[in-house]
Amino acid sequence: MLLSILYIIGITAEAMTGALSAGRRKMDWFGVMLVASATAIGGGTVRDILLGHYPLGWVENPHFLAITCIAGIITTGLARWIIKLKGLFIRLDALGLIVFSIIGTKVAMGMGLHALICIVSALVTGVFGGLLRDLICRQTPLVLHEELYASVAIIASGLYLTLLEFGVHDVTATISTLVIGYLIRMAAVRFKWRLPSFHLEGEGSVH
Amino acid sequence: MLLSILYIIGITAEAMTGALSAGRRKMDWFGVMLVASATAIGGGTVRDILLGHYPLGWVENPHFLAITCIAGIITTGLARWIIKLKGLFIRLDALGLIVFSIIGTKVAMGMGLHALICIVSALVTGVFGGLLRDLICRQTPLVLHEELYASVAIIASGLYLTLLEFGVHDVTATISTLVIGYLIRMAAVRFKWRLPSFHLEGEGSVH
Amino acid sequence: MLLSILYIIGITAEAMTGALSAGRRKMDWFGVMLVASATAIGGGTVRDILLGHYPLGWVENPHFLAITCIAGIITTGLARWIIKLKGLFIRLDALGLIVFSIIGTKVAMGMGLHALICIVSALVTGVFGGLLRDLICRQTPLVLHEELYASVAIIASGLYLTLLEFGVHDVTATISTLVIGYLIRMAAVRFKWRLPSFHLEGEGSVH
Repeated sequence: MLLSILYIIGITAEAMTGALSAGRRKMDWFGVMLVASATAIGGGTVRDILLGHYPLGWVENPHFLAITCIAGIITTGLARWIIKLKGLFIRLDALGLIVFSIIGTKVAMGMGLHALICIVSALVTGVFGGLLRDLICRQTPLVLHEELYASVAIIASGLYLTLLEFGVHDVTATISTLVIGYLIRMAAVRFKWRLPSFHLEGEGSVH
Repeated sequence: MLLSILYIIGITAEAMTGALSAGRRKMDWFGVMLVASATAIGGGTVRDILLGHYPLGWVENPHFLAITCIAGIITTGLARWIIKLKGLFIRLDALGLIVFSIIGTKVAMGMGLHALICIVSALVTGVFGGLLRDLICRQTPLVLHEELYASVAIIASGLYLTLLEFGVHDVTATISTLVIGYLIRMAAVRFKWRLPSFHLEGEGSVH
Repeated sequence: MLLSILYIIGITAEAMTGALSAGRRKMDWFGVMLVASATAIGGGTVRDILLGHYPLGWVENPHFLAITCIAGIITTGLARWIIKLKGLFIRLDALGLIVFSIIGTKVAMGMGLHALICIVSALVTGVFGGLLRDLICRQTPLVLHEELYASVAIIASGLYLTLLEFGVHDVTATISTLVIGYLIRMAAVRFKWRLPSFHLEGEGSVH
């Protein structure tokens, strides 16, 4: 129930960030709705396709899709105002990331899959929306360069699985994961925590 | 039956436009066949994957795939001639868009899905082939910038669903949708009807 | 059994080439693991999604995913050394291509699909990993421009199917296909065999 409300807040916020990317590419309203929806529910869609988990969430509940399309269009009118709320959106995005990770973990657990695949499921749910947005808008995928993001999805999923493993009640595990995951993500943004990155110069290639 | 013939005309024409894009990227014959097939049957493929509608059309009927590959290769020999037929291809593309939209609507209806998902199914069938072409050829997706295209798929699908809802016979509904949808698309091209677009300048970002 | 060992060698080598591409894009460790895994097991994943062949290989056997992630990370430490082994990697890539093609053919045969779809299945398994790598790293897909690659997958798959058709034992057919396919690919690299390519100049467009 809590998770459902947070999920709707999460997809709305993600849809708005997607719409802003579409605006930077001067897309029309259809493009705005497409990028908004791909950003918000693309991660869950890729997860369900990879796991063979049909029907997809938004096929069963078309109102999720309606929400992301409407959030995208509203963003076109409020863009200047939304950009000023950068701090709020970073917080909502952090919250969305943890909510998506918990939902991804639950879906894979419900299918009886290996713990490693539960974590991958969380990762895909949390990260692939943003990847799709950046692919469609032809910009360098942020998640592959910036502060800890994918790692936070992995940590959140691992924490949630561990708590359940130790017999913690689902509600307690969910709330603990939400709080701790959110704080880790916000700390990563504030202190610019990053994974090591791999720079390879020159034309060296094995192809 | 009519729809089957129009479908084959549609995928042939779409395969040819895909092959021309591949040629602009100096691809080899495999690239030409890949882009031709993705353009022509990629929309239906994405639709079937999203809806979990297996087996895919071209897996069940491999001759559709053979048609798109052959159309792609023939295009490499006739490119100069085809480019001169621009007017014909705009008409065939408009026809294909409506045919794909009707087929997409029918597939989702046949699975008992919500009307909103039937319209999304039409949209994906009509539009995602061109999106895949533009992604593989690394060009800005036309459908997100140009004259009404996705909107025509939505209108055609909505019209077809409404006619059936009012008890119109399937053949009559199909032909009416074909004629009206085609005329709307051609009018959009001629009069440059566009959706409002969303231009966001500067580096403002919420990420 | 032989095929399983060669498969693991193949995905390891492909993961390493993927990691090098990620390094050229200055990605972080997550990006490295993503591109390594997409390159190595992305082809099989796309194939299984297209054929509706669930569960995916790496969902059932998560250690394949672990191998590609670890191979990717190891590559970040050994990059200079790996680049000097260009000759070895070209050989491993050729071997991997044939192994992937045979596995792709077998999967589609096991589902009772048409011979043409078995060949497409081999092609997708062999080629789409590299395509995904190039899409994520935003580089021009090599497979659409370079020496025979996709064609080798088609030839290997066709040869394997033909041998089985003539009653040759599976082990003999597999080994023959491996040897002949490998030699054709290496000859294509050495003698720069290419498919004809299609160059279309100017702004001529049918859209």
